[in-house]
Amino acid sequence: MTTSHQDQTMMARALALAAQGRFTTTPNPNVGCVIAHGDDIVGEGFHIAPGGPHAEVHALKAAGECAVGATAYVTLEPCSHYGRTPPCCDALVAAKVTRVVCAMQDPNPKVAGRGLARLQQAGIEVVVGVMAEQAKALNPGFIKRMQTQMPYVQLKLAGSLDGRTALANGQSKWITGEPARADVQTFRAQASAILSTSATVLADNPSLNIRRSQLATEILDHYPQSVLRQPTRVILDKHNKTSPEATVYQLEGEVIRIVDMPSSQIWPDNVHEWVMPDASLSAILHALAQHDIDKVWVEAGARLANQLLTESLVDELIVYQAPVLLGADSRPLIALDGLQRMDDVPRFHFNQVTPIGDDVRLIATLSEHAVITQEY
Amino acid sequence: MTTSHQDQTMMARALALAAQGRFTTTPNPNVGCVIAHGDDIVGEGFHIAPGGPHAEVHALKAAGECAVGATAYVTLEPCSHYGRTPPCCDALVAAKVTRVVCAMQDPNPKVAGRGLARLQQAGIEVVVGVMAEQAKALNPGFIKRMQTQMPYVQLKLAGSLDGRTALANGQSKWITGEPARADVQTFRAQASAILSTSATVLADNPSLNIRRSQLATEILDHYPQSVLRQPTRVILDKHNKTSPEATVYQLEGEVIRIVDMPSSQIWPDNVHEWVMPDASLSAILHALAQHDIDKVWVEAGARLANQLLTESLVDELIVYQAPVLLGADSRPLIALDGLQRMDDVPRFHFNQVTPIGDDVRLIATLSEHAVITQEY
Repeated sequence: MTTSHQDQTMMARALALAAQGRFTTTPNPNVGCVIAHGDDIVGEGFHIAPGGPHAEVHALKAAGECAVGATAYVTLEPCSHYGRTPPCCDALVAAKVTRVVCAMQDPNPKVAGRGLARLQQAGIEVVVGVMAEQAKALNPGFIKRMQTQMPYVQLKLAGSLDGRTALANGQSKWITGEPARADVQTFRAQASAILSTSATVLADNPSLNIRRSQLATEILDHYPQSVLRQPTRVILDKHNKTSPEATVYQLEGEVIRIVDMPSSQIWPDNVHEWVMPDASLSAILHALAQHDIDKVWVEAGARLANQLLTESLVDELIVYQAPVLLGADSRPLIALDGLQRMDDVPRFHFNQVTPIGDDVRLIATLSEHAVITQEY
Repeated sequence: MTTSHQDQTMMARALALAAQGRFTTTPNPNVGCVIAHGDDIVGEGFHIAPGGPHAEVHALKAAGECAVGATAYVTLEPCSHYGRTPPCCDALVAAKVTRVVCAMQDPNPKVAGRGLARLQQAGIEVVVGVMAEQAKALNPGFIKRMQTQMPYVQLKLAGSLDGRTALANGQSKWITGEPARADVQTFRAQASAILSTSATVLADNPSLNIRRSQLATEILDHYPQSVLRQPTRVILDKHNKTSPEATVYQLEGEVIRIVDMPSSQIWPDNVHEWVMPDASLSAILHALAQHDIDKVWVEAGARLANQLLTESLVDELIVYQAPVLLGADSRPLIALDGLQRMDDVPRFHFNQVTPIGDDVRLIATLSEHAVITQEY
């Protein structure tokens, strides 16, 4: 592998570009591309939204004739198949770039390497693996879905320093502060879907949507009104306990209700009913992946959290902690009773610890490889 | 106040020097001093240990004749009284410095300002308050003892991300890792005293001392064998439940047993018995402050932690968190039952969050003013 400090610098720029699509590209991955002669960037771009041009096409268009003889830096292997757009490999060949540097192969084992082979057949020098870890961190959902047909599951928890969510009498306003609650919006906005339960809908009547007013200005820059994307809301409503009047169903955007049997009620057009009798959580997550959902943000009660953890379905914990102590008779952050041996304990790896207002946000991932959550 | 960027730079150096004494100066404060002409440092020093020269004396000695016409930067108001050493004010006047910059006044309200007045009377220009917050952060124990006749209390807690210390069956090896346990040694080494209980002594037979083998090399540089300082161990043993054979009594260094009535057993010479029938924790802490103990590191069970928190006697929480979940039936980090209103909840301020090996250390302080724990 022939790489240099220059390759790293250019790929870092391509990664930064790719990250700009993180609120809008789902179910497509975030991809960035830089076209350069040495230090001289002649074109760059990133994938913005499904159906729109891929990163390479944006960058090649910006480069024009200057692409001839240039190096293209791409954060993901260029596609070699006709999807919603023509193959990027062909575009790179046609533009006469002489070298392509990729951060990583296509994670889909069925297509990985095909794009690279095509480029090599056309006489282009190909380098793979430059800043691969950072590139993987951009698309944990897409990669997991491609490789396992399961989504990447992020479980949000919020509580006190002693792991409690409310006093024994239920009082909990406010443990974490407004900045932590606003930060949740940023995570929701990057998810393909928000997963919750009928119990949470009935107890809190939450919106579970993205509110422009609560997003940071830097995010709104990536969110012109026309592309404001609402993650799909998925409500586990096995026994049809919720009603169409609940706020979560009344707001715009796709909602999926997972039920054991069809509901007799009339639901808004944006609410879809998936009848999956006695389906396991694993089967439900698999079905969501088949529906192109690859990053699931879970906001629910201790029971769903418990089930997900017990079945080892959680890839990432996002824990907001307030610097307060609520005491041993207060409500637990997580149920998860009956663990008998330290070897059986769900064990994660701290990945990022960040002050958020007066609180702290701890991100812990299942895999040891760092998943670097985007900062802005 | 006439200050400049240069004053800040020089005071930052004096603060760094002061911090080098943090393992050895108790019951004296950490103090550093720089003597300079403009950018040109002609002498510097810090207080190393009680009975030894003050920071100013070290710095003036190093400066020699160069002190004439110089500015002296001192992290604490120079003393104006005869203690174990002659007053530093007199030394500064005799050395003919023309300007003295102090980070803060003496925290003892009875003497604060006297040193400064004496310097001014001698015609020296005096500036106070440069990097005052950082200077206060160096000596939270000394300042609290001088101002309130109570020690600064640090409560150490260690547990899981969901605030648990052990499984329901008591298994807890290991929740936090070896680096976290080694880190505790660094805190112990900076404390005047380590406070624990008969229950902890009987349950764990801990050493509660400083072990050279577990201290970082950087710390050992400040710890030649001759000045290895063992914090006083204080054991709350109200009902005389512990025996002289316990490890904590067998190791070198002062141990204080707080009891309700005299013990009939024979104790090693280094073990002192304080008979304080039915004394409150507050009274015991006050007695420790009278004994020149100003920074108390608490390593004990949930019960003592509970009592200290309930009586608002904790200044700082040091919480080691492992990225594991133990579940709601596991043992709580803290007892503290019966809180009825969010307004009554012990509320701290996150001050520092630091990865320690695979774990995270969260420091939360009672006061909003940042107490910056020394890093090395």
